[in-house]
Amino acid sequence: MKAFEFLLNKRPEKPRSNGITMVLDKGLGLETASSLMDISGEYVDYLKFGWGTSIIHDEDIIKAKVEMYKAHDIVPYTGGTLFELAFMNGKLDEFFTRAHNLGFPAIEISDGSIELAREDKLESIRKAKDEGFEVLSEVGKKNPLLDKDLSLDERIEFMQEELDAGSSLVIVEAREGGKNIGIFDSSGNAKDDEVDCILSKIDNDKILWEAPNKDQQVYFILKLGNIVNLGNVSSDDITSLETLRQGLRGDTLGKL
Amino acid sequence: MKAFEFLLNKRPEKPRSNGITMVLDKGLGLETASSLMDISGEYVDYLKFGWGTSIIHDEDIIKAKVEMYKAHDIVPYTGGTLFELAFMNGKLDEFFTRAHNLGFPAIEISDGSIELAREDKLESIRKAKDEGFEVLSEVGKKNPLLDKDLSLDERIEFMQEELDAGSSLVIVEAREGGKNIGIFDSSGNAKDDEVDCILSKIDNDKILWEAPNKDQQVYFILKLGNIVNLGNVSSDDITSLETLRQGLRGDTLGKL
Amino acid sequence: MKAFEFLLNKRPEKPRSNGITMVLDKGLGLETASSLMDISGEYVDYLKFGWGTSIIHDEDIIKAKVEMYKAHDIVPYTGGTLFELAFMNGKLDEFFTRAHNLGFPAIEISDGSIELAREDKLESIRKAKDEGFEVLSEVGKKNPLLDKDLSLDERIEFMQEELDAGSSLVIVEAREGGKNIGIFDSSGNAKDDEVDCILSKIDNDKILWEAPNKDQQVYFILKLGNIVNLGNVSSDDITSLETLRQGLRGDTLGKL
Repeated sequence: MKAFEFLLNKRPEKPRSNGITMVLDKGLGLETASSLMDISGEYVDYLKFGWGTSIIHDEDIIKAKVEMYKAHDIVPYTGGTLFELAFMNGKLDEFFTRAHNLGFPAIEISDGSIELAREDKLESIRKAKDEGFEVLSEVGKKNPLLDKDLSLDERIEFMQEELDAGSSLVIVEAREGGKNIGIFDSSGNAKDDEVDCILSKIDNDKILWEAPNKDQQVYFILKLGNIVNLGNVSSDDITSLETLRQGLRGDTLGKL
Repeated sequence: MKAFEFLLNKRPEKPRSNGITMVLDKGLGLETASSLMDISGEYVDYLKFGWGTSIIHDEDIIKAKVEMYKAHDIVPYTGGTLFELAFMNGKLDEFFTRAHNLGFPAIEISDGSIELAREDKLESIRKAKDEGFEVLSEVGKKNPLLDKDLSLDERIEFMQEELDAGSSLVIVEAREGGKNIGIFDSSGNAKDDEVDCILSKIDNDKILWEAPNKDQQVYFILKLGNIVNLGNVSSDDITSLETLRQGLRGDTLGKL
Repeated sequence: MKAFEFLLNKRPEKPRSNGITMVLDKGLGLETASSLMDISGEYVDYLKFGWGTSIIHDEDIIKAKVEMYKAHDIVPYTGGTLFELAFMNGKLDEFFTRAHNLGFPAIEISDGSIELAREDKLESIRKAKDEGFEVLSEVGKKNPLLDKDLSLDERIEFMQEELDAGSSLVIVEAREGGKNIGIFDSSGNAKDDEVDCILSKIDNDKILWEAPNKDQQVYFILKLGNIVNLGNVSSDDITSLETLRQGLRGDTLGKL
């Protein structure tokens, strides 16, 4: 039972078809992460081992973290930059094999830092699916200058193509910072008309909006309700985000 | 013995009548919080389970955290938004009963997110006292626009009324962010004349200033000395704040 | 073996003669710090117990943390403000004795918060060396107004003097914030010409640049390669910094 069960605004249990929360792990200790999941793991759907972080950690600790997250019914997955490094080095097969051996049920496929032909990206999604992985794919460039070159129409077209190729969710890039990238301006405010435009073409349940900052999370929850899928949430903010979703924090209280 | 005991600027031991530090817990894991209290718990007087966070956590873990904090002579209490949700839903009695069962010795009573008639707020403070709780009450609105509607004179009048009704401390709202709210401007700088005005009417020992940012903590310590009561301190900053209070960090060294 | 060993860009093992990472501990719990070192301690060379923080902690827990860090081949040392407080209070001998007893192999000597004659600072460095400590010394003032009074020529002269007196590394001050201090402007951007000027006179391997923010770390790595020595790194960013050094994060991928 929850501590104040009678004030809870219950949401569907995992696995959820929307209202998904993806958390960014940028190198938490195993015990610290485990302690955090014990209190709030039920509110986490996906757990991203950020960019190439898992490359430099011992396999034993990565395996233990993957198992721990899975025991909390969380889907752990490798950050997109890891795929990009493997692709760039011609080691895609080795990457898939290792990801399997380490226990990852899902991987992210992106082209945020490298040039990747559309067909290569779509083929990689298909291949990863064939290998038995769930695939999340990301649209957007990590370099703000390159990201601006991507028109909104292209962004939307790419999203749909990747869903058609087998991605279970398509991620709108915002990095760890959430400013001057994708649908966020240099102050981190969402460009409302661009969000509307994306939503007019792509199924909301299939979009995972990276929204690292609290104001961005509030924006999306007030706009789209607690069913919105949000990602790159800091591990410090798991409980905060869930209270925002349930209307238990001032910013959304009485407004949902 | 402390590691460098001969450089310590000892402060009174708990329970302290001033120089109080209130820390914001926004969902720490039990073991992580316990590890932190082992090193720095003696510098924490009050521990707030922020806003509605404890609603969504299992009762077992909340009970264990409450007990752990109490074992460090810290007063754990429920955030004001939790009271507001209970009041709004007509479940004040159920809230008091649960808070007791979970082991909370204190609660916060606020009206930061809901409309609450003055008499209802004062009556709630009296009732919570009758139920055996220590009460901390907060003056201020979480929405900056509504907060601006509150004149300084009203703010001061409300503070005194709430102390008279039985609050042991009255909190000046600044949220987790500390900007554009209460006595802080949009850059997070304190409005010095407003602080002076409040202090000319209300006993400094009865005021708990929310001051989440380091510059705000430095401002208050340099202005009022280490006896100032400070709140919404991040769990990451417990040790930093105590060194500021003792003149053991550059910002206050030699200035107290 | 690393989780994705085949994508690793191996760096020299500790003890390293350059590419050093110094992390700031501002009061971590023992178990939390230990959990973090288990996953990423191999990427930490020096660990600073920030400013006067260790003064207020129990000797048992400081000893345990010092031992834990040393077990990970990390050099733990006391922050410069601790030396300054001891000097100011005429307790330098007591400070050295206690630092030895607590197990610290190194100390920092600075004059960021107090007035200290040049000869006194150099003599303190020599004396600490004679006492068996490794010495890191810092040039710069914590107060931005005073820091501005220090000309670049003086800064460089002081750095060389301190290296000659026995410092193993000389630290360029940037505090925990990294703005409006030393070689960083009020936005936290590095003044490139000043960095070049310093590098034209002082051996890069002997300089430890405080660079608390990610953009600053990226700047130095892109400018000087992964052999640059960086300090005041947040304990949350250990893994991130190592991936930046190895080109495994978007900001440096393909650019090293």
